[in-house]
Amino acid sequence: MDLTKLNAELAKRDLDAVVAVSPENVLYATGAYIITQKLVRDRIAAAIFPRNGEPTFLVCGIEESLARAESWIQDIRTYVEFQENPVRMLADILRAKGCRGRRVGIEKRFLCAEDFEVLVAADRDTAFVDCREVFEALRPYKEPLEVACLRKGARATRKAVEAAFLVSKPGDTERQIANRILRNLFELGADEMTFMVLGTGKRSSIVHPIPADIPTEPGHIVRQDVGTLFKGYHADMAWVAAVGKPTPHQAAVYRKMMKAHKAVISNMKPGTRFCDLYNQCKEIYLSEGLRFFLPHIGHSLGVELHEAPMITPGNDAPLRENLVMNVEHIHADPDGSAYQLEDLVLVTAAGPEVLTGADFSDEIPVIE
Amino acid sequence: MDLTKLNAELAKRDLDAVVAVSPENVLYATGAYIITQKLVRDRIAAAIFPRNGEPTFLVCGIEESLARAESWIQDIRTYVEFQENPVRMLADILRAKGCRGRRVGIEKRFLCAEDFEVLVAADRDTAFVDCREVFEALRPYKEPLEVACLRKGARATRKAVEAAFLVSKPGDTERQIANRILRNLFELGADEMTFMVLGTGKRSSIVHPIPADIPTEPGHIVRQDVGTLFKGYHADMAWVAAVGKPTPHQAAVYRKMMKAHKAVISNMKPGTRFCDLYNQCKEIYLSEGLRFFLPHIGHSLGVELHEAPMITPGNDAPLRENLVMNVEHIHADPDGSAYQLEDLVLVTAAGPEVLTGADFSDEIPVIE
Repeated sequence: MDLTKLNAELAKRDLDAVVAVSPENVLYATGAYIITQKLVRDRIAAAIFPRNGEPTFLVCGIEESLARAESWIQDIRTYVEFQENPVRMLADILRAKGCRGRRVGIEKRFLCAEDFEVLVAADRDTAFVDCREVFEALRPYKEPLEVACLRKGARATRKAVEAAFLVSKPGDTERQIANRILRNLFELGADEMTFMVLGTGKRSSIVHPIPADIPTEPGHIVRQDVGTLFKGYHADMAWVAAVGKPTPHQAAVYRKMMKAHKAVISNMKPGTRFCDLYNQCKEIYLSEGLRFFLPHIGHSLGVELHEAPMITPGNDAPLRENLVMNVEHIHADPDGSAYQLEDLVLVTAAGPEVLTGADFSDEIPVIE
Repeated sequence: MDLTKLNAELAKRDLDAVVAVSPENVLYATGAYIITQKLVRDRIAAAIFPRNGEPTFLVCGIEESLARAESWIQDIRTYVEFQENPVRMLADILRAKGCRGRRVGIEKRFLCAEDFEVLVAADRDTAFVDCREVFEALRPYKEPLEVACLRKGARATRKAVEAAFLVSKPGDTERQIANRILRNLFELGADEMTFMVLGTGKRSSIVHPIPADIPTEPGHIVRQDVGTLFKGYHADMAWVAAVGKPTPHQAAVYRKMMKAHKAVISNMKPGTRFCDLYNQCKEIYLSEGLRFFLPHIGHSLGVELHEAPMITPGNDAPLRENLVMNVEHIHADPDGSAYQLEDLVLVTAAGPEVLTGADFSDEIPVIE
């Protein structure tokens, strides 16, 4: 995280300090990835940034060595789990930094109601306001180390799915194909899995089908969407394959979707508006005779799976350099199958870089 | 979930309704496992139980079909994401159920501060109190379907780790061994991975080492702890292995820990107190010359990884039938390695059933 930019955001919003408490903002702001913060909800971690002052990182005692090893923050404080209240310690730290009676930004969409009450009770003079916008202003524009991490995950996911399709055959179950994808991803360096969605035939049209012991059959469409983490950064990609020789209809649907996909991606340059991308996708879908009911056709990602901004019809802001976005669209076909494409794109001054891999084919992948 | 028991808890605590909003309590209370609720935090789901009345299940529109397929609750309501505020809809539902001005239990340790403010603002006459204790009173004592799910996950984890140790050899990296464990787990039916901890040599003593491309060497201890989900229920098991022929010291440490492990587990019968188990483990550790600094030696698990109750020195409540507990203890050896044992136990009237598998050996597993 760029401290100069953070301080500028705090000044702009008249905040005297900001406190990150969600796992994603703690990772983003400190560089330390504390997995147990996600697994054990009460094991609070908080990163405190007074405007133009020294930051402090508060973690559970058992995570001290990890915090010291991974974070650039020098001032690390710890609490003893079940014995000390980390929220009261947070209030004490804010007071010591001179924030009493000032405006402090905190993640009111993450911090639970009970902890917020403890915080407010400890300092009734201080205005605790939501700070979502501070991080939303910074996080979409990735730093080089973040891009490297996202590129590694995106490329690995594309390879993992492609390789799994190549060695699968009609009759394999959803779970078998899904397990091949996961195995490949772990081989390629994924640290954690976040979700695995894979459905065959009519099940492709369920929004989030958990892979089951159901065999694929010739004529089916297999739709998959998989999420993993590489050093705490998300990788997320969806794709489809035809089981056995694709029907002319299946081949045509895929080609039409790919036409929209390539057109939108090639337009992802600084200055293009998010709504322009959305409308472009919608127009091609409709002119090609595809169904279009999507509220958005993509989301930013990074330390969180769905980050702002999103590619919606109402978002008339322009794309900017170093933005990383998933372009993602689904067509629910009248034949009962759903088709999906999703790729990850980095916006650069020179144009879009497809982090998943730019080698798009107009032919639907085949499991044969 | 047993509605009769829930209603008894509500009566006991003078609550007119209770609302589940966390992914774990929504799964527990409704039977529906909505994975995107965990991935996209704003995609709220809420299960509303008026005392002795008809429950209502509120979900995001795109999850309606899943909720209808998986939940026993008939009255399912939906909201349109980004357009309707689910918290205001929740307030409307509570009002329609006659809860205005009454006492309503809600998860104040999960619901975020901002949503809680919206809820309170919608109904200032209603007392919204934390309902953690309601679910903590019910969840430890598992129903037969829950036990079946936990047994499947526990047994699969034990097999997955044992099989990975069997086919690993000195020189394999942490990541290679970890990937074998994960691959086995997915083959055996795991739907999701929650965490993977594996460290070799000195890294075994880091609390939560993420597997790295670091080779195991003869003389090392490998410590692993892995978590997955089977239909939303957690599986969690830790174990160690010696790389190459174990030294007499390594073999002895393992035997001593196993002595404590077996003694504690054989004592897990209805009526035994949690603190008795803790003290028993501590006494054997100390009498055998092992270090003991643990705040607890086990936790319940189910829809959540660490559930109440825990095996702590201060917990003088008795164990009861149908309780499922992980027994988990770590010894940090002066030689710089850490050793860990963790198994899952079901408390029955006939005594303990080790769900991970009761075939304990006093010999440390070997990677050779």
